[in-house]
Amino acid sequence: MPSRRDLANAIRALSMDAVQKANSGHPGAPMGMADIAEVLWNDFLSHNPTNPKWPNRDRFVLSNGHGSMLIYSLLHLSGYNLPIDQLKQFRQLHSKTPGHPEYGYTDGVETTTGPLGQGITNAVGFAIAERALAGQFNRPGHDIVDHHTYVFLGDGCLMEGISHEACSLAGSMGLGKLIAIYDDNNISIDGEVRGHGDVHGWFLDDTPKRFEAYGWHVIPKVDGHDPEAVKKAIEAAKAVTDKPSILCCQTIIGFGSPNKQGKEECHGAALGEAEVAATREKLGWPHAPFEIPADIYAGWDAKAKGAEREAAWNAQFAAYQAAHPALAAEFERRVVKGQLPGDWSEKANAFIADVNAKAETIASRKASQNTLNGFGPLLPELLGGSADLAGSNLTLWKGCKDINASGYDGNYAYYGVREFGMSAIMNGIALHGGFKPYGATFLMFSEYARNALRMAALMKAPTIFVYTHDSIGLGEDGPTHQPIEQTATLRMIPNMQVWRPCDAVESAVSWKAAIERTDGPSTLIFSRQNLPHMPRSQAQIDAIAKGGYILSGEGNPDAIIIATGSEVELAAKAADALSAKGKNIRVVSMPSTNVFEAQDQAYKDSVLPPSVTARVVVEAGVTDSWWKYAGSQGRVVGLDRFGESAPAGQLFKEFGFTVDNVVANVEAVL
Amino acid sequence: MPSRRDLANAIRALSMDAVQKANSGHPGAPMGMADIAEVLWNDFLSHNPTNPKWPNRDRFVLSNGHGSMLIYSLLHLSGYNLPIDQLKQFRQLHSKTPGHPEYGYTDGVETTTGPLGQGITNAVGFAIAERALAGQFNRPGHDIVDHHTYVFLGDGCLMEGISHEACSLAGSMGLGKLIAIYDDNNISIDGEVRGHGDVHGWFLDDTPKRFEAYGWHVIPKVDGHDPEAVKKAIEAAKAVTDKPSILCCQTIIGFGSPNKQGKEECHGAALGEAEVAATREKLGWPHAPFEIPADIYAGWDAKAKGAEREAAWNAQFAAYQAAHPALAAEFERRVVKGQLPGDWSEKANAFIADVNAKAETIASRKASQNTLNGFGPLLPELLGGSADLAGSNLTLWKGCKDINASGYDGNYAYYGVREFGMSAIMNGIALHGGFKPYGATFLMFSEYARNALRMAALMKAPTIFVYTHDSIGLGEDGPTHQPIEQTATLRMIPNMQVWRPCDAVESAVSWKAAIERTDGPSTLIFSRQNLPHMPRSQAQIDAIAKGGYILSGEGNPDAIIIATGSEVELAAKAADALSAKGKNIRVVSMPSTNVFEAQDQAYKDSVLPPSVTARVVVEAGVTDSWWKYAGSQGRVVGLDRFGESAPAGQLFKEFGFTVDNVVANVEAVL
Repeated sequence: MPSRRDLANAIRALSMDAVQKANSGHPGAPMGMADIAEVLWNDFLSHNPTNPKWPNRDRFVLSNGHGSMLIYSLLHLSGYNLPIDQLKQFRQLHSKTPGHPEYGYTDGVETTTGPLGQGITNAVGFAIAERALAGQFNRPGHDIVDHHTYVFLGDGCLMEGISHEACSLAGSMGLGKLIAIYDDNNISIDGEVRGHGDVHGWFLDDTPKRFEAYGWHVIPKVDGHDPEAVKKAIEAAKAVTDKPSILCCQTIIGFGSPNKQGKEECHGAALGEAEVAATREKLGWPHAPFEIPADIYAGWDAKAKGAEREAAWNAQFAAYQAAHPALAAEFERRVVKGQLPGDWSEKANAFIADVNAKAETIASRKASQNTLNGFGPLLPELLGGSADLAGSNLTLWKGCKDINASGYDGNYAYYGVREFGMSAIMNGIALHGGFKPYGATFLMFSEYARNALRMAALMKAPTIFVYTHDSIGLGEDGPTHQPIEQTATLRMIPNMQVWRPCDAVESAVSWKAAIERTDGPSTLIFSRQNLPHMPRSQAQIDAIAKGGYILSGEGNPDAIIIATGSEVELAAKAADALSAKGKNIRVVSMPSTNVFEAQDQAYKDSVLPPSVTARVVVEAGVTDSWWKYAGSQGRVVGLDRFGESAPAGQLFKEFGFTVDNVVANVEAVL
Repeated sequence: MPSRRDLANAIRALSMDAVQKANSGHPGAPMGMADIAEVLWNDFLSHNPTNPKWPNRDRFVLSNGHGSMLIYSLLHLSGYNLPIDQLKQFRQLHSKTPGHPEYGYTDGVETTTGPLGQGITNAVGFAIAERALAGQFNRPGHDIVDHHTYVFLGDGCLMEGISHEACSLAGSMGLGKLIAIYDDNNISIDGEVRGHGDVHGWFLDDTPKRFEAYGWHVIPKVDGHDPEAVKKAIEAAKAVTDKPSILCCQTIIGFGSPNKQGKEECHGAALGEAEVAATREKLGWPHAPFEIPADIYAGWDAKAKGAEREAAWNAQFAAYQAAHPALAAEFERRVVKGQLPGDWSEKANAFIADVNAKAETIASRKASQNTLNGFGPLLPELLGGSADLAGSNLTLWKGCKDINASGYDGNYAYYGVREFGMSAIMNGIALHGGFKPYGATFLMFSEYARNALRMAALMKAPTIFVYTHDSIGLGEDGPTHQPIEQTATLRMIPNMQVWRPCDAVESAVSWKAAIERTDGPSTLIFSRQNLPHMPRSQAQIDAIAKGGYILSGEGNPDAIIIATGSEVELAAKAADALSAKGKNIRVVSMPSTNVFEAQDQAYKDSVLPPSVTARVVVEAGVTDSWWKYAGSQGRVVGLDRFGESAPAGQLFKEFGFTVDNVVANVEAVL
């Protein structure tokens, strides 16, 4: 019977050997946290290695994702589909063991981590999703949603600002099933965070006190190398159900390396052959690299226990099904299959037809709220929110109910002024399953959250990012709040679909596209100011979903004006003015360049015939990426400077967004 | 003799009247903080309204920048060049009173605020600059640098993650001359932050405890409407010199508005004519809008006291000059005039010539460090740092000395894992004067800091942002760390100059350009991997500073290959291969598209003749914005998807960054 330390040493050996083989990676954290991980995974974590998608599993997040060999070791040892050959391929092309844990590459990796602070924030999202799902689905005697979220994190995560946003909100929400384990090893890349010698420390926080200030249950000074102490601390954490818990575990980075443990040297580089050998000696681990004795495997194997757990839950779910068949069917739809309601498409299209019939002149942010009121009742999986701008972003709809510390069955989160936190929390909610999260702020403050949007795109998470106040059209708040380059730069994130609709109909269609998307995030960009309705045929309404389409001017145009959002009105008026002068001008509305780009070449050429090189693009933002469509013979009417503080109408005029100027530009290319 | 309350009511009246006139703005915060502001400005703030650039003035930052009428009122009342007519033009085009306080628009506005959390972070930068400048220049008996930094901030700032980064670092550094005043009014846009009725609160932090955890001196529960209490608290804050202080002032938002005070309604909208009238009544302020009685003006006027303060400092400086003439001259150069050393240009060029002569094949991050070692001794104003990646970013040079809590004369900050905090702190340092701040992280994590880069560009602050590990060339860390769209999106920030040099010579030239820039920030992007030296004539070396130039292939080329950074080598090799086939291929190295774009058309046409439409761009990143240069007939060899985790060489091959593929693309356009 191997000791706990023997079991933990298997992690240490696999980690140092894989990093050594790759000659790249981070052995320090896995070796430092091995004892903690052993206790958590063998004594507490409720999961089933043979079904990594079992809905009621505990979630485990490695927020310090550079320690990826820790999770790969755990998945391999406990019986997931991650054979030893994959560990030998650590950090190699197309392996299941990339440098950082990547969601979708490796069974059992719940979220992609590496960008520090986002893992703990995703974990807050998992915990919110669990709570809200439990609130919506559990019934007396039927706690079918009931799992914990465990997260490992290091000094780096705790220094990042996003950890403040996430942990402050988690405390305010009282997320009792969130248990964070802090690897307090006093080391970051620049050295000892509390200082050493000539170098004063850069992270002297009293972290336990900080988390008490957030309303967390804090367990300070746990010896991270004493399994009994760790076990007691996790038990204590589980016992407190109205607050999230943090265990502050004091560890030695690179534990077991006789010459490098406790130092930055073992953080982010292979130990070296000699030190690996010395570590084997010190740990009493005589086995060759990537060789794990059978009794160690047996000590880790979680397959049988996992199958039992899932079987027990299946029995519980069968009873729930018998007692609450409609709810159970809804659970299967939303959580197990992740499907939209059967009548979704039909009803959504009916709503869009209704919007078209109304032909309202309204701000697209208002059109967005109207759409939420239209779609919301069809989609109990919507989980909305705003970073303290509900009344400006118009994210509240009639069916919204607050998710709070006492009533859990809501569908709306007051995220506070925490844009980055909100965004990475939404990613966690999206990955958890059961919800379609959307959350909003001003478009400008997408910048505070930008890497979370990228992470959603990388993970193919269908998070919906809603941004209002999309241009100089927001007016008096001035250049700090007026987006110029934001829409263009969001479009550049691979796998992001950005929509900037021009009226209420395009707004509704863009919401429908975002809701239906399963393989990546969407960004919906709305105006503060009113936008007029554009008349369209049914075929044109259908074409909106292609991202770009002919709004007017079929046949063989003399010139094409391409526009998005609030500038489509200008394009249409300019085309009218030019028509009056005998020109045949096509107006192309392009609410989503990303989606248009994904259409086949024949469709794209039908909208933008290569023979028509007289083209003008109009968008109140930076111009550089529009030359792809404007072409060498074309022009772009845009804005390559910062805005100013003034009423919106004055600004559009000041910066040349006038019918006359668009007409002049078209005439110049004709 | 007006009472303190009368003086404070002048702020309230001006604020509510200006917002009412504009029918846009935020009256709540100015009305709530008026009593605090009155005490700070009339009893403590050491400034001179007739010389807003007096070097030793206290800095005042309104981190809750939406309350801009507070600072405009203060500047107007105390005697700055901000006449009442400008207050009447609040939020109108080209006024000095834009919606948020904008640096450079209004005398006395020390930094642009509005994006929450960045003002307090800029303030930490001011405090660091003050400390380091004092450490470098003060001598026994000559404290010529000795001022405080005061910052107002609200709940929004404290919820933002960046406030954690900035305040944790300020605590670790023991910035005793930083005094923050927290407007604890329990209101954010979504309502009562501590909850009300059905809505649970979203910000239940124990803020005093949080700041104690950071090592701050905390003064809790100050009555923000009791001038004596505020005065005592500021005195207590000034008395503690080894820790930053925070005053937690309980206030009523919109104080004085009988029906809207204490409620969100008065936060971000005009009170309305009736409520303005009722407020006049309640405050006992009978004067017409924008009319301030003479005795109130007299009570606020700080011109005489300010002139005295500056005169006293001038006398002190004269004594310093007599005792330490060389230091005083250096102070005048760096702080007063903000000039580079007289021999800078000559010596920098000599260094660049030396780099060229060495012709080394090294990573551009290493070339950057070599440049720092070359330029550093010439520039005592360099103030470097890294967000915990000193050994990876290679930001330490031989003359670096830590700025810490005990020794203050350093020139290097260990910022910890705080990218956004570092960046906004650097903006504060740049605005303070006396230093050229540079700070680094991995290029990917520019995203964590993105809005601070934009703010530098908006404020024309010459901050130098250094980013290493610039592409898939970083290898095994994988897609979370591999920049794809980052360089392209940074180039889109108006007034940002982005450099991505191809070798050691371009690296040194880009550093020189960044150091010489006075009207905006620069971003320097360096590789992890080695890059070969490119041979150049002196004329070509001189042309690097134009952002784009002919590296090879004069005359009348058959095709042009445009490349940046690590892909210039590929372009050069492809051109060689095509030359062997009898083609005349021009290679254009374009380290800075922003700088190239600013050249005159004749120069641009000489590098990229419009007649040559056979063009291929090569850059390991997103392609969309390159079509401007590639043109409709051209091609872009780039990467519009996420990377993978593998050794760098394999990745370049996997994604088509090979000589063969570049040759094939050129042949396709020929």
